[in-house]
Order: sequence, then C-alpha cells, then structure tokens
Amino acid sequence: MAESGRTPQARALLQQCLHARLQVRPAEGDAAAQWVEVTSAPQLLRLFSGAIQRGLVIYVCFFKGADKELLPKMVNTLLNVKLSETETGKHVSILDLPGNILIIPQATLGGRVKGRNMQYHSNSGKEEGLELYSQFVSLCKKELAANSKCAEAGVVVEHGTYGNRQVLTLDTNGPYTHLIEF
Amino acid sequence: MAESGRTPQARALLQQCLHARLQVRPAEGDAAAQWVEVTSAPQLLRLFSGAIQRGLVIYVCFFKGADKELLPKMVNTLLNVKLSETETGKHVSILDLPGNILIIPQATLGGRVKGRNMQYHSNSGKEEGLELYSQFVSLCKKELAANSKCAEAGVVVEHGTYGNRQVLTLDTNGPYTHLIEF
Repeated sequence: MAESGRTPQARALLQQCLHARLQVRPAEGDAAAQWVEVTSAPQLLRLFSGAIQRGLVIYVCFFKGADKELLPKMVNTLLNVKLSETETGKHVSILDLPGNILIIPQATLGGRVKGRNMQYHSNSGKEEGLELYSQFVSLCKKELAANSKCAEAGVVVEHGTYGNRQVLTLDTNGPYTHLIEF
Repeated sequence: MAESGRTPQARALLQQCLHARLQVRPAEGDAAAQWVEVTSAPQLLRLFSGAIQRGLVIYVCFFKGADKELLPKMVNTLLNVKLSETETGKHVSILDLPGNILIIPQATLGGRVKGRNMQYHSNSGKEEGLELYSQFVSLCKKELAANSKCAEAGVVVEHGTYGNRQVLTLDTNGPYTHLIEF
C-alpha cells in the first residue's frame, strides 16, 4: 500500500454488494442502453432461493506516473483482502467467498478540492489511464479464472467502459466502504 | 483540506444519487426495520413526472485526534463544493441544486491494509466518533435550514445511525465518487 506522505499511483475504493447493475453503453438512436449486472447468484436461482452471497464493487483511479508493474500487486491485494462477508458473518476474500466483481473506472476519485471546485491535475492521462484500466480488468479476470473455487462457482468479472458515464444501481447489505491506495 | 503527508482528522466520500434508501433500524422481534429515503423529489411526484434532480450521499469517518472545531469548515466544504449535476449538465453545490442529503457513518473508510486484513487503529474512539458524527449531522441540518433555496424546495438531511450496519440501496446516474480529507 502507498506509504503515507507519498503521492499514490492508484486509488481503489471497495464496496460490497448484494446486487449491482452498471450501464456500459448509453442508448443511442434506436439502440437501447447496454448494462452489466452482478448478483450473488444467477438471478433466477436468487429469486427462488433468496440466496445472497456478496459481490465486490471496485472503483479504480490511476494517477500520473502509475506504472503497470504495479498492477499484479494491486490486483493481488484487492482480490485477497478479507472484506467479503459470508452468510455466517465471517470475513473472507472475494476469491474465497467466492463472489462476482464489478470494476468501475472512476477518475473522479483522483480529485482535489480547490475552492469550490475539484481539480484532477494528478490523474493519469486518458490513454495511459485506459491502458492501465484495461490491464487491470484483464488481470482480475485472469485471477478469477485461475481460481478453482471461483471457476466452479461460475463467478464473473464485469466492468464499466472507460471514459463513459457510470450509471450504477447498487443494492447492499452494508456497503462496508474501504479505500486502498497503491 | 488535509495537506498531503499529514494524517487526516476526517475522511468524507461523496456519491451523487437519484434515489437512496438506508436502513436506520434493523427488524427486531415484531418490529419491522426502519428506513430513510432520499429521492430527488417526493416519491409520487417522481413516479408521475419522472423528475430527477440529484441528492448527495456523504459517507463520513473520523480519525483519532479529530477536533470538533473542524466540523464547520468540513460541512461548509462538503455542502458548497460543486459536485451536483443540474438537468442541463452544469455542476453546482448540493445547496444550489438544491438536493437532499444522506449522511452515512462509515468507520470502515478509516481502515488500512495489513496483510490480508484491514486495521482501524487510526479511527476515533466510539464515543468520540459518535459525538463528532452527531454534531456533523446537526450542522448539515442547520445549514440546509438556513438556506432559503433549500428551505423553499423542502429538501432534507437524512442520516444513518452510528454503529449500526448501513443497509443501503443506491440508484445513480453516475456515482461521480469523490474523496475529501480534512
């Protein structure tokens, strides 16, 4: 994690969800908006069984100077930190839950107050940010696929499209919000 | 705002919402759970008119050594920073929108990663945290009441109960997540 006093390379915000829905493409002309959903279990199963395991929402922002060599450590930390609650109230990692993951690019997390406005001077540039974000998503998918518990449970990684408005609906049993800097 | 390098006294996380619903008392025996809701307009009106102005969700966490003299500056910043979007896409403060406010105590925001666990050693003590939280809520209410635009629009401050699980449902047109430290 970033040592206090040093400018971080990346900031991640974690919230637990029972269900989350994110628009990945806005409506345009005749084409309806496209969405991804993260639920604790397949929707039908959930409707009938009421089973509620949690998923993890990861909001992520990269700063100027962020190095892609940071990404494996970052993904390793985020997927292994014990912040997901089992049905018996124990905290385990999202890999151990196992649960779904929704990744949301959130450049606003890099803002600093200046008077009554926010400034984003420390944020990574657009292309560089997109590249880091894409690799971050790929690495998360890879980790999930390589985890036998996750593969067996059929959990997935969904993610927002970089640079778009992140239209989000979130249903939680307590967001249990955590900030982790790298 | 907290200068970089110095431990903050408080951390606030802001998300914009179209609608938010928070449980303020869990179900107990025969008593149903109690909830507060924040919508952009009275629910019925919203159902029929489709009007959607935004509200602001403020997650707040206090650290050891936080001084209540911090609170007026903190409230002033949070209510005046221009992070709320009007229907024409302009960013104004929540007071100028005007919009409703939902305050959520979120001690987890003070956590630090240690191995695979989070530690909360820097968080304010429970009594001290409750006192700061209560005063923070009161000050927000006072500011809203003193603002003629808010008073006229009938917007409100709702808030979670300190120390409880914050069961939250959030509906956004983009959470537009910002972190502000004090």
